[in-house]
Amino acid sequence: MTTWRLQDLPPKWAHFCLGIERFVTKELNVRLQDTTLVIAYSTGVDSTALLYIFHMLAPRLHLRLVGANLDHGLRPEAAREQQIARQTCSQLGIPLECARRDIASLARQQSLGLEETGRLERYRFLEAVRAKHNADFILTAHQADDLAEDVLMRLIRGVGWPGLAGMAGVDQDRHLVRPLLQTPKQVLEQFLTHLGITWEKDASNADPSFLRNRVRSTILPLFLQENPGFLKTVYQLWQCGQADRSFWDQRLAQHLQGRKQYIPSSLAGLDKAERCRLIKHVLESMGPGQPLAESISRLDALWQNRATGKTVQFPGDKTATITRDGIEFSWKP
Amino acid sequence: MTTWRLQDLPPKWAHFCLGIERFVTKELNVRLQDTTLVIAYSTGVDSTALLYIFHMLAPRLHLRLVGANLDHGLRPEAAREQQIARQTCSQLGIPLECARRDIASLARQQSLGLEETGRLERYRFLEAVRAKHNADFILTAHQADDLAEDVLMRLIRGVGWPGLAGMAGVDQDRHLVRPLLQTPKQVLEQFLTHLGITWEKDASNADPSFLRNRVRSTILPLFLQENPGFLKTVYQLWQCGQADRSFWDQRLAQHLQGRKQYIPSSLAGLDKAERCRLIKHVLESMGPGQPLAESISRLDALWQNRATGKTVQFPGDKTATITRDGIEFSWKP
Repeated sequence: MTTWRLQDLPPKWAHFCLGIERFVTKELNVRLQDTTLVIAYSTGVDSTALLYIFHMLAPRLHLRLVGANLDHGLRPEAAREQQIARQTCSQLGIPLECARRDIASLARQQSLGLEETGRLERYRFLEAVRAKHNADFILTAHQADDLAEDVLMRLIRGVGWPGLAGMAGVDQDRHLVRPLLQTPKQVLEQFLTHLGITWEKDASNADPSFLRNRVRSTILPLFLQENPGFLKTVYQLWQCGQADRSFWDQRLAQHLQGRKQYIPSSLAGLDKAERCRLIKHVLESMGPGQPLAESISRLDALWQNRATGKTVQFPGDKTATITRDGIEFSWKP
Repeated sequence: MTTWRLQDLPPKWAHFCLGIERFVTKELNVRLQDTTLVIAYSTGVDSTALLYIFHMLAPRLHLRLVGANLDHGLRPEAAREQQIARQTCSQLGIPLECARRDIASLARQQSLGLEETGRLERYRFLEAVRAKHNADFILTAHQADDLAEDVLMRLIRGVGWPGLAGMAGVDQDRHLVRPLLQTPKQVLEQFLTHLGITWEKDASNADPSFLRNRVRSTILPLFLQENPGFLKTVYQLWQCGQADRSFWDQRLAQHLQGRKQYIPSSLAGLDKAERCRLIKHVLESMGPGQPLAESISRLDALWQNRATGKTVQFPGDKTATITRDGIEFSWKP
């Protein structure tokens, strides 16, 4: 068993690791001391760095770490990568949970895309590992490049604010934490290179049939060309989004106070910005199916015109009806 | 004099013109009835369409129109375009104000970029025309493609929310209205083509030394390729931004109540989203110089730590100091 210690690193890289800790505790407000953490470890550059960083932070924070590796059954190299994951974790004295899923056939069964199915199964697996080990959080290795790609993809798909600012740094409901969101991929590569640690390259990251890969290889480089500090720019936008998310969450909670399927006439005193978010919040709390911004606008316009009895349909078989004193939400029978 | 009349158009294009009127009155909340409007008319496709649309809306809304054309002294064709502007306006019975500025030498004198100088001089000229004719509003021909380019450029440069959602549809302080913001350029071309009206092509729109042109020719087409409805998607984001802008403007006005250079301790009860916007609002009210998001964050963190006496510098020689009961803003002596 090899132990890498923070105090053996040159100051630059020791500070780097402590910066990741600070990001999680100060920026994401997640208490790490004495926790058990599941690390999603694919053997790629990002998750390898994540594993080593938290291995080195473990003694000072009294962390218990558990690795987790899922073979999606899509690439022949994945079995070998799982073998590498076993070796690395065993060297570091970190228990590793491995599993294999046939994502291609699951995708066919559920009529979902490969990416979407892979994502769902991966998080399902990570949650199972978390539950088994009674862990506090699952750490994923999304970094600043991923965040910028995410923002660009959300802009392409048409996500409103604050969703446009990118993935959450912490998702308390799903026990997810993303400690590397502020860190460019390049810095993670430099860190591992300095330690003399190798990582595996995922060839599917170059496959142009995935939107994410087209954004990574074509669109993001153009933004970096126009603004070499674009990753930092995105990070600032993300911070603005996090602050707004928390602002709106608190405001909406005040209005709703447990009555989730009905927006009462207190709506009358609200601004459009708030009314539309309230409608969106209620619809999302009713289960799967993303409401379109256009339908929310339409419902809001009907409410403003007091069009009593009018109804708007939403994905997931949800409907909203204007009543004399508010908006009533229900499911189609 | 040729008069184009709304009632002579095929229903499709008559509805199109009425849709522009509805956008201005309903979406932008600008009353058009009985107003005098200055139309920024460059003879390009967008402003030619704007001129004809408002010419045809004029009788039903009792509008008085004034054209305005500025030769920037940068392109040899501009003199000929001004001649075309004269002919068109005279045919339509619209008075036209023309002027010429040597933007290149003004830019050198003021050490500003050509684009920036051109923009400043153009709006100065338009405001002079508005004042001379005692007009209510200046109409500019920015359309949905311009809005998408604007959003992408703001993302590149790093603009927070709601600024990221793009240029305002109406700017009451500057008497500006942008009636075509929801309309794709392609539709304006189809409209003019149907009427049999020609327009001038501005060759400088292809010059890749301007960021806007690189965004137009390279980045925007990639977004349209990923989402053919991207212009509509941007428009929905813009609507979300307009609603948020009005929400924050009202909230901030409540907190400030005229005391512009001092944020009192009521700051303590606010959310980060609101505190940072309040700081930004005060700084912007103090005159030119855009505050960096990073400096605002730093000032906010100092306030949260009650770091009395600490100071942050901002562009435009502005400083902010943490006091025992708030934040004091001033100019450097």
